[in-house]
Amino acid sequence: MAYEVASIPGDGIGPEVVDATQPIFDDVSEQFGFDLSFHRYDWGSERHLEQGAMMPATGLAELEEYDAILLGAIGHPEVPDHVTLNNLLLPIRKGFDQAICKRPAILFDGVESPLGGYTSGDIDFVVYRENTEGEYADMGGQEHPGHGHEVAVQSSVFTRTGTERIVRAAFEAATEREGKVTSVTKSNAQAHSMVFWDQIVEEVAAEYPTVTVERLLVDAASMDFIRRPEEFDVVVASNLFGDILTDIGAIITGSMGLAPSANINVSGEFPSMFEPVHGSAPDIVGDGIANPLATVLSAAMMYDHLGETDASDALWDAVTGQLADPKAPRTPDLGGAGTTEDVVQDLRSRL
Amino acid sequence: MAYEVASIPGDGIGPEVVDATQPIFDDVSEQFGFDLSFHRYDWGSERHLEQGAMMPATGLAELEEYDAILLGAIGHPEVPDHVTLNNLLLPIRKGFDQAICKRPAILFDGVESPLGGYTSGDIDFVVYRENTEGEYADMGGQEHPGHGHEVAVQSSVFTRTGTERIVRAAFEAATEREGKVTSVTKSNAQAHSMVFWDQIVEEVAAEYPTVTVERLLVDAASMDFIRRPEEFDVVVASNLFGDILTDIGAIITGSMGLAPSANINVSGEFPSMFEPVHGSAPDIVGDGIANPLATVLSAAMMYDHLGETDASDALWDAVTGQLADPKAPRTPDLGGAGTTEDVVQDLRSRL
Ligand SMILES: CC(C)[C@H](C(=O)O)[C@@H](O)C(=O)O
Ligand SMILES: CC(C)[C@H](C(=O)O)[C@@H](O)C(=O)O
Repeated sequence: MAYEVASIPGDGIGPEVVDATQPIFDDVSEQFGFDLSFHRYDWGSERHLEQGAMMPATGLAELEEYDAILLGAIGHPEVPDHVTLNNLLLPIRKGFDQAICKRPAILFDGVESPLGGYTSGDIDFVVYRENTEGEYADMGGQEHPGHGHEVAVQSSVFTRTGTERIVRAAFEAATEREGKVTSVTKSNAQAHSMVFWDQIVEEVAAEYPTVTVERLLVDAASMDFIRRPEEFDVVVASNLFGDILTDIGAIITGSMGLAPSANINVSGEFPSMFEPVHGSAPDIVGDGIANPLATVLSAAMMYDHLGETDASDALWDAVTGQLADPKAPRTPDLGGAGTTEDVVQDLRSRL
Repeated sequence: MAYEVASIPGDGIGPEVVDATQPIFDDVSEQFGFDLSFHRYDWGSERHLEQGAMMPATGLAELEEYDAILLGAIGHPEVPDHVTLNNLLLPIRKGFDQAICKRPAILFDGVESPLGGYTSGDIDFVVYRENTEGEYADMGGQEHPGHGHEVAVQSSVFTRTGTERIVRAAFEAATEREGKVTSVTKSNAQAHSMVFWDQIVEEVAAEYPTVTVERLLVDAASMDFIRRPEEFDVVVASNLFGDILTDIGAIITGSMGLAPSANINVSGEFPSMFEPVHGSAPDIVGDGIANPLATVLSAAMMYDHLGETDASDALWDAVTGQLADPKAPRTPDLGGAGTTEDVVQDLRSRL
């Protein structure tokens, strides 16, 4: 098999983790006998600062034919976030109808949680985040700008299609895991949208009688991720709530440097995108100490999506093996003194 | 001085904590030489189930003349949350223009945080939550209901007045604390509303040159409450983000059973409302083990608001003294085996 993947290293530590991990991916292709070539796109904030745009006007069209996209990180101290994000990351997620954002939260053996009393295996859940609409709808505006009595409106949009497909994906996933779905809303304060979400959860749940359903409000869920993270299996949430919950999920499992994600186009019409959950981390750019493991695990999710499950499993095994090995190098976010390169070389030796 | 306070015990453990703490408040009145009488309103879900309404149509008018309102908790397993909340709690907050929701998060001496490595005094911040608009605006609806291609829209509304007054209150508070304000938004994904919020923060910040300003996205802030809670002083956020952040603030400081809140009407035209952050906790109703301390601290915030600062200080001192005393009774949420009544009697002995 041969795959063509677009890589968008992006900003900050994005290029560091994407470039450093290339040899690992070459090893994997060779070992598992497929051909996977990366085509690098230097899009991002530097381009915006030089040429006035994060990507060319033809950006999406160029990406469309790829089998997948691997993204590093987007965000730059000199460019407002709503500019960087609304001109690269969010257009890809929405433009390629990447409806399902899947983000596992796993406390790996050898990794310490900031929550006292939790050890390896205690935390193992996955968040299914709606990824194309909801609170990220680009709808709204401001009236009376500059006149001292401004009103700003931002509208969330929940469609039957968008809501049903993420809820269904979560239930489907639960049947292959522990059989539990936790749906997170704010139905008490946002009844127009969230009661609709609840209704769809109820409908879909009826099709999955073996799956246990729990409903939580987002404030309680954020608390329960800290109080009882061991009780979650599949969590399904809107775009915004999924965003918040997956950052909490990443930190309680030890480090943002370990959290991978997949943005899946369900129809297969467009490429899916795989990216570490962490940002561009301007504070450590150039130090060579960015943790490459979230990128490696994101690529593992990409191999799985492409059907190369052996390659995917090999990467997961190498990462879990490294983390469990007290002698293995680790980056500072995990309390070590290793470099990105040390971690990569050690991983290669485990493959 | 004489004060008239409306007490709305509400649902679940609400009546337990409000009734049990009455003797404490009587002690305080006597000790500090003022007259404060509570007028009890049996409004809530039981009333809804029996009479079809959480409160009478004249509810707000009845409350309007009081000096303050003390609320227990609202929420009932047999009544949908959007019914209970939109017919009692939120109408009071909005109807009485209680623009500032103030919620301290303090790790008290003697209380254990679920975050490893944090001890007494390490965490001490206050969240200023916008309390009358934003994501809680009752704006939106559903199109094509029941026809399989529904669209639900929920609009957030941010006004100049609403945003400016909460931001200003936060900066004002910072000048009397450590001089730092953290503004939490989601400006990268919700530019229509949140960039407006940022602009107001910038304007108000210019009036407070001695206050340090930090800007965080809500996903990062939720993470940072877990990763570096010691660095926060005053946190200002929208209605929804404040809701999420204060639940995280409560759990990282040991228990929902300790977190108080004040809903302040700034103009003084209407009564302010004081309520524990915790809910009605149907799982422990009737067991006599609900933690009354969040109610006591909420009342302390009420005394402070009424100008009875000595009484307020005395309550804070009694609570911190009790928590720091390893021999004092404590309720199960704090790892003890004490009852609500044990905690109340011990507190009275400390006043
Ligand atoms: C950068 C930002 C727009 C993005 C999001 O909110 O989705 C990020 O936080 C994430 O979680 O992938
Ligand atoms: C009960 C609910 C409507 C309320 C809120 O979201 O404001 C509660 O969570 C709170 O924090 O006071």
